[in-house]
Amino acid sequence: MILRLAIIGFGNVGQELARMLLLKRPWLLRSKGLDIEVVAISTRSKGSLMSESGLDLDRVLMEIGTKGDLKGYPDSHTDLGPLDIISKTVADMVLELTTLDIESGQPATDHITRALGNGMDVVTANKGPIAFAYCELRALARSRGVRFRFEGTVMDGTPVFSLVEKTLPGIQVASIHGILNSTSNFVLSEMTRGKTAQDAIKEAQARGIAEADPSLDIDGWDAAAKITALANVLMDARKTPNDVDRTGVRDVTSKALAAAKANGTKIKLVASATMADGDVRLVVKPVTVGPDSPFWSVDGTSSAITIQTDLMGELTILEKDPALTQTAYAVFSDILHIVESIRSGTL
Amino acid sequence: MILRLAIIGFGNVGQELARMLLLKRPWLLRSKGLDIEVVAISTRSKGSLMSESGLDLDRVLMEIGTKGDLKGYPDSHTDLGPLDIISKTVADMVLELTTLDIESGQPATDHITRALGNGMDVVTANKGPIAFAYCELRALARSRGVRFRFEGTVMDGTPVFSLVEKTLPGIQVASIHGILNSTSNFVLSEMTRGKTAQDAIKEAQARGIAEADPSLDIDGWDAAAKITALANVLMDARKTPNDVDRTGVRDVTSKALAAAKANGTKIKLVASATMADGDVRLVVKPVTVGPDSPFWSVDGTSSAITIQTDLMGELTILEKDPALTQTAYAVFSDILHIVESIRSGTL
Repeated sequence: MILRLAIIGFGNVGQELARMLLLKRPWLLRSKGLDIEVVAISTRSKGSLMSESGLDLDRVLMEIGTKGDLKGYPDSHTDLGPLDIISKTVADMVLELTTLDIESGQPATDHITRALGNGMDVVTANKGPIAFAYCELRALARSRGVRFRFEGTVMDGTPVFSLVEKTLPGIQVASIHGILNSTSNFVLSEMTRGKTAQDAIKEAQARGIAEADPSLDIDGWDAAAKITALANVLMDARKTPNDVDRTGVRDVTSKALAAAKANGTKIKLVASATMADGDVRLVVKPVTVGPDSPFWSVDGTSSAITIQTDLMGELTILEKDPALTQTAYAVFSDILHIVESIRSGTL
Repeated sequence: MILRLAIIGFGNVGQELARMLLLKRPWLLRSKGLDIEVVAISTRSKGSLMSESGLDLDRVLMEIGTKGDLKGYPDSHTDLGPLDIISKTVADMVLELTTLDIESGQPATDHITRALGNGMDVVTANKGPIAFAYCELRALARSRGVRFRFEGTVMDGTPVFSLVEKTLPGIQVASIHGILNSTSNFVLSEMTRGKTAQDAIKEAQARGIAEADPSLDIDGWDAAAKITALANVLMDARKTPNDVDRTGVRDVTSKALAAAKANGTKIKLVASATMADGDVRLVVKPVTVGPDSPFWSVDGTSSAITIQTDLMGELTILEKDPALTQTAYAVFSDILHIVESIRSGTL
């Protein structure tokens, strides 16, 4: 089977995925009978490529790695924007990996809508569309008989959506609690170790964890978008991040952290979704956590979610110090899940 | 679709599963189009039943709950032993839920072999067959074109085998570390809180966690069987529990636990499987764990495993204070996974 991909957005995650596709190519051919070709790459400012016969990923990575753009790649150039590329490409599947506008979920939602509407399967690592428009996108995908997956949107490559969908059949999710924003968690960890808030944020920026404008992290927007995405998919919540009762870590003082430490506790930014009276209540706020909590060891850039269920009690999944590889792996695993669905004729 | 089950072994797990099948019957019919009938129940000393038209589970549970055996159930009685029941039943699937002989994996392995050989799908909650004979049983299932699942054998209903199989495609597992034996972990937790080893074991027995002869727990046999099962399935280890370098918690003293506590650490019984030079090394031994470990909060009867992978880094799954429901759910989820495989025509 040949699978043709269009990659919309080719930053760090897209490039890491391209490396993974090259690395796993022999395994994919041998054990899955799967030949994956990239037939389009769209970037905002580094040039875009489209080729029916497939792009040479080694060459693409070399150009973008050494020269910083795709302009030296021979032939295949296009001036089309992402929406036109999605309309004109011969790809079977679109990977939506653009940078997120967290306050609107755009332009990712438009890209995904166009691709699903054109009858293409879609994988995204972009939390916005799931937080703002999951219901509509799911309905569109179903009406067109195509697949839509998004494992990379929360906790990088750690399976959270797949965990419930594929390993917990028949389960009802009663609540979800998570440490979902790396920057906030890192800043709280560093402040507990004596750094000022400002220095901790600078350190997070230096390590490439926080955005240049870290307020989306610090004020709880990122965590709000992620818990909304989780609740929409796993609890059919039909919410947006605007529905979240949101308090970030901006007002957590060094003094409060020191007091928590002296009490043998920690303060963590916890996002939660709780089912009550048929509705889902979404909250992001700093919470005191004790040493008997599964969140106790979740420091720095690590993350975790705990799921309360009807039949399976409480389970927690933790990710330790994720790197870029994990997000790329989420996209890779979604591609393989879709291939499996295509082969078994399911959605 | 009608699915007919034969249940071999009808103790606590079997009865809890029967309750779950009754509870979820409307959901199974409505959303899965699945009608599950139990056509045989085999017990060692409480009577056995076989009926082509299906047993009344409400009545079965009432009889065994109020009278302690199945002798009052009208009709359907049989004097056949489990192997003959497996041979003669009209069931499509056998659930192997007998009590385990941990030193041999019997009689469960014989029951499973008979069922697979007869072309029936099999679900077991019995770790012995996976620890002692996984390779042979997998080969038999494949040669007969039937399915064999066993999620309940390790960490109750928490998806560990399914986690890797169904949510982490293309992953290579480099190592597994786990807190897998509830009794040992409970005893160490209680001893840390000041109890003597003997009192802690008595308490575990009183709570129904430990066996009457707790040496299989305390000497690390149970953890050895579980890590072997994990390694056989997830790392193709082809080992038995006899290959495990095994040290239990018998020689962990209150003094050592107090010293660990004074150092801000804990002692845990950790089972591990590590890939090295193409072979898998299996170890069970008491290990010192610090507060930055995901195992730190895993006290009492809770359990956890950490998996190191090539593409997805390190991830940990924790189960908090599992009850009987979780093991029954593991069997329930395996049944649903097999139904899905039957429907999509895969193995």
